[in-house]
Amino acid sequence: MTNDKILLDHGSGGKISHSMFSELILPVFNNPELAKQDDGAILMLGEEKLAFSTDSYVVDPIFFPGGNIGDLAINGTINDIAMCGATPRFISVGLIIEEGLPLADFKTILETMAKAARKAGVKIVTGDTKVVPRGKADKIFINTSGIGVIAPGVNVSGSNARPGDKIIVSGTIADHGIAVLGTREGLKFDSDIKTDSAPLNKMVQSIIDSSCGIHVLRDPTRGGLGTTLNEIAIQSNVGINILESSLPIRGAVRGTCELLGFDPLYIANEGKLIAFVPEKDAQDVLEIIRQDEFGKDAVILGEVTNKDPGRVFLKTLIGGSRIVDMLTGEQLPRIC
Amino acid sequence: MTNDKILLDHGSGGKISHSMFSELILPVFNNPELAKQDDGAILMLGEEKLAFSTDSYVVDPIFFPGGNIGDLAINGTINDIAMCGATPRFISVGLIIEEGLPLADFKTILETMAKAARKAGVKIVTGDTKVVPRGKADKIFINTSGIGVIAPGVNVSGSNARPGDKIIVSGTIADHGIAVLGTREGLKFDSDIKTDSAPLNKMVQSIIDSSCGIHVLRDPTRGGLGTTLNEIAIQSNVGINILESSLPIRGAVRGTCELLGFDPLYIANEGKLIAFVPEKDAQDVLEIIRQDEFGKDAVILGEVTNKDPGRVFLKTLIGGSRIVDMLTGEQLPRIC
Repeated sequence: MTNDKILLDHGSGGKISHSMFSELILPVFNNPELAKQDDGAILMLGEEKLAFSTDSYVVDPIFFPGGNIGDLAINGTINDIAMCGATPRFISVGLIIEEGLPLADFKTILETMAKAARKAGVKIVTGDTKVVPRGKADKIFINTSGIGVIAPGVNVSGSNARPGDKIIVSGTIADHGIAVLGTREGLKFDSDIKTDSAPLNKMVQSIIDSSCGIHVLRDPTRGGLGTTLNEIAIQSNVGINILESSLPIRGAVRGTCELLGFDPLYIANEGKLIAFVPEKDAQDVLEIIRQDEFGKDAVILGEVTNKDPGRVFLKTLIGGSRIVDMLTGEQLPRIC
Repeated sequence: MTNDKILLDHGSGGKISHSMFSELILPVFNNPELAKQDDGAILMLGEEKLAFSTDSYVVDPIFFPGGNIGDLAINGTINDIAMCGATPRFISVGLIIEEGLPLADFKTILETMAKAARKAGVKIVTGDTKVVPRGKADKIFINTSGIGVIAPGVNVSGSNARPGDKIIVSGTIADHGIAVLGTREGLKFDSDIKTDSAPLNKMVQSIIDSSCGIHVLRDPTRGGLGTTLNEIAIQSNVGINILESSLPIRGAVRGTCELLGFDPLYIANEGKLIAFVPEKDAQDVLEIIRQDEFGKDAVILGEVTNKDPGRVFLKTLIGGSRIVDMLTGEQLPRIC
């Protein structure tokens, strides 16, 4: 990092975020749990194997089609815990509120959070509220942290991808990012563009409860599918090939991306997962995901290879192949 | 709450904060863990009894005499876990950074956090970084959440105070709040006013490892000693009497409070605890606390009675008695 100030790019979830983490944060806090760079830390506490994760939500605007910052914050941490192969149990909520936030908005957000927690079967057990003067924050920021339990024998990590694994995505990509962007910029959209924010813990539980093998689970949020696949390719030191023809994207989302010059591969999702599974189990896992209410549009997107470790390739519709790099700067700030 | 907007008072830690919690937040998230209103939630996870706590730090300025927002955030959550009678083990860190924060400041804060965690023997195991545009936050906000383990047989809660209990405070009060205020307002202070931010987990461990009884542990942060004692009086439905002559306050802090019209009873502390212990164990617990590096100035401050449940009385220097109410509005915003 040559700049001497924090830039928006540092929060993008892409390359510059990663270099900040690996060059600045990790060396200072250095420990093996943090170094794994999964969505949450895996911890032993007595006889229990836990997943522990945290996320702050600064989305702008705080209300958008299909949801608000409240369910986003609950679902996001539930999903981070689930992606560790854990059953999410307990959530903490830290609120930073800008003076002047309408109480009606605050109540709506709280109620949305409570409803999201109930739907996912997790409990909000502890919290904290801070208020800062007007102009010192932007309406409301929410941190959620969560604890989940990992069953014996479950071992899911971004470093577990193996050549031959099939890669499943649980549904359409880029819905959340485009829904938030559209609201923020006041774009007139086709009405079916809305956030995909959803809890994926039941989907994950069904996969884990099956006898299928599961190597990697990850939710492609900030930085999008393209960045997440790159993270896994690097963590597991494998190559990844995906098919453009298999990418599930809603027509309206695709159209908006084309119009505005965004690549849907780098747009955030908040209710999708990617699963890396042994080839022999791929069809079974695909069926399990499709049975879930949030997995109806799941497809097999590609596979893991032993060529070009650390790289992701997209086989394009016209038969070519292009490198899918990690997002470099900030495509869409404050998307979550 | 008659106003229709969030006010600074809602974040004071005093009466208005409490009414927001009990009238707005608790009914929405309602569950027994949250309803206990202790510093953290006590949870059973398999065979393990855990404490789980969260706090967001929005202190202004971020650097102040004796520390910065980094060690404040680590020590604060360590202490919240310790006040549950737990051994803090793991910490998460959620950073919300304003675009433009000097990288040098960011590094200093990270290093201070790492040092604080090492000193207390806890691990920072997971984290998240968000960046918001300039003017949408104030330099840096830090959320820390923590997990601790509660040993079998330990039962510490704000609802466990019993008539006859002695109340110990582990040292001088009001140092942190006055140090932050002084820096913010550019006051020229006597040089010995600095934050008391410190990890109290080893002090708590020593008390728990002794054979002494311990009913309540609490760190009097936002809202100060006066508000914390009121919380306990209400939670335990007991009366509390404290002696003004026993209140440990540094001369410079007392002088500044007098000059500015602040009551040190309502000024935040970040490295002090109050302990409610059975009378027979009070001298022993006092000695244990005084042996700790952060407990040298500990004193017995007062006692619990069965009169006037829910009320706190101060026996003044001139022999009178006055009610110590909970802080009503916001005396000092953004103190932590």
